[in-house]
Amino acid sequence: MDGFTYISSKDNQYFKLASKLQKSSKERKNEGKFVLEGLRICNDAYENNISFFAVFATEDFIKKFPKEAEKLGSVSENKFTVPISLFEKLCETKSPQGILAVAIIPELSGNIFGNKKYIALDNLNDPSNLGAISRTAEALGISGIIMTDDSCDPYSPKSIRASMGTLLRMPIVITSDLSKTIKENGLRSFSCVVDKEAKDIGSVSFKNGDVIIIGNEANGVSEAVKKNSDFLITIPMKGKAESLNAAAAAAIALFQLSK
Amino acid sequence: MDGFTYISSKDNQYFKLASKLQKSSKERKNEGKFVLEGLRICNDAYENNISFFAVFATEDFIKKFPKEAEKLGSVSENKFTVPISLFEKLCETKSPQGILAVAIIPELSGNIFGNKKYIALDNLNDPSNLGAISRTAEALGISGIIMTDDSCDPYSPKSIRASMGTLLRMPIVITSDLSKTIKENGLRSFSCVVDKEAKDIGSVSFKNGDVIIIGNEANGVSEAVKKNSDFLITIPMKGKAESLNAAAAAAIALFQLSK
Repeated sequence: MDGFTYISSKDNQYFKLASKLQKSSKERKNEGKFVLEGLRICNDAYENNISFFAVFATEDFIKKFPKEAEKLGSVSENKFTVPISLFEKLCETKSPQGILAVAIIPELSGNIFGNKKYIALDNLNDPSNLGAISRTAEALGISGIIMTDDSCDPYSPKSIRASMGTLLRMPIVITSDLSKTIKENGLRSFSCVVDKEAKDIGSVSFKNGDVIIIGNEANGVSEAVKKNSDFLITIPMKGKAESLNAAAAAAIALFQLSK
Repeated sequence: MDGFTYISSKDNQYFKLASKLQKSSKERKNEGKFVLEGLRICNDAYENNISFFAVFATEDFIKKFPKEAEKLGSVSENKFTVPISLFEKLCETKSPQGILAVAIIPELSGNIFGNKKYIALDNLNDPSNLGAISRTAEALGISGIIMTDDSCDPYSPKSIRASMGTLLRMPIVITSDLSKTIKENGLRSFSCVVDKEAKDIGSVSFKNGDVIIIGNEANGVSEAVKKNSDFLITIPMKGKAESLNAAAAAAIALFQLSK
């Protein structure tokens, strides 16, 4: 296909860059780039005006989806065809579709705030949970995600895959001081905790300008953030399970928030 | 350790049985047995009086956890020590703890029904979703899961792991005719659908004797089951996401049901 250069070695600098970005959150931060794997995710990024830096496609993919290959190639400075054996080394998924892109991490602006409803994540660790929460948040009309900078990487392949691409369009703010960011933007904050003394989430009337905080999978919301939040709320539990999974708790909390 | 026999070959019949059960839902059904991987899951099964058929432990595990090895060995007819290289071939997880058991699938009785609250799964496909739903259902005090027999296997390693062991104690009924099972047991049924015409789940007053039906990840609740259910309910969606993930929808629905 026009404009696509053939790569046959894993020593190619673009190939090496993509490999590094797949594996390391640190590299993604340093380079300001991340990887999109599969046609659906690439198309989601394209539709959300995410800038592409490089596109890698197998010959099979180009044969099967010539229009898609041309479209994605047309917005990328660098484009390559790669033999399937080499392409597989780039991929996280087991039976790759044959398309992968390196994209530029969008500049996160602090400008997501207004009189709307938000979710905050305090040291959330699991990219699958982050992806699931982003998907739920978008479906329920939540206006943005505020995350601590010790949370998992929203641009990891796992996060993006689990989010069904919603992380590519959900407004995100990453902060080193969650309580300060919440206060500075005049939001009313609710830490979601496992504590029978906390307010039953079912009895809270949420309104615009509210943010619900979900904590770390093992340790919950940190003490400092809890202390600085306006309310402690809880999802009443009746069974033997020690706690709800973070994504399930977030789904319940966001549904209450969205009502 | 006393009573443990050393296995050095993958041709050992018990080892072969465990391998088969790990991989195939059909074998689990034929043999009426399933695999427990890791100490936490083995202990969950032990505490829930699940019968053990065979226990496999590495020498390292026995050294580190002699009491646990003895306890789990004491309830199993057959017990083996296995070199780590062979043990790893048995395991689904990447860094196995060194303990794995073959257990007997408990007899599922139709006797879970009463004036309580239930969730039904109509052709749910993904074992991770099933596990997550079981965990949420237990935490929210739901009394049992009714599943169609074309749903995924509750005794697959993935289902059990995702459920954090809750599938080992959650009452389960598997049926070939979901609508009939629901009607025969006098339950009031609510199919959870993506349909703006359906009743907003937030406006329903649930009571004991109610069951919420969650459908297949791609296709939702089947037409036949929808037609036979008493009510269609929906979780109002506002964003671009086509739909909520099945586990997120179930979390919201079960929270409403549990109130």
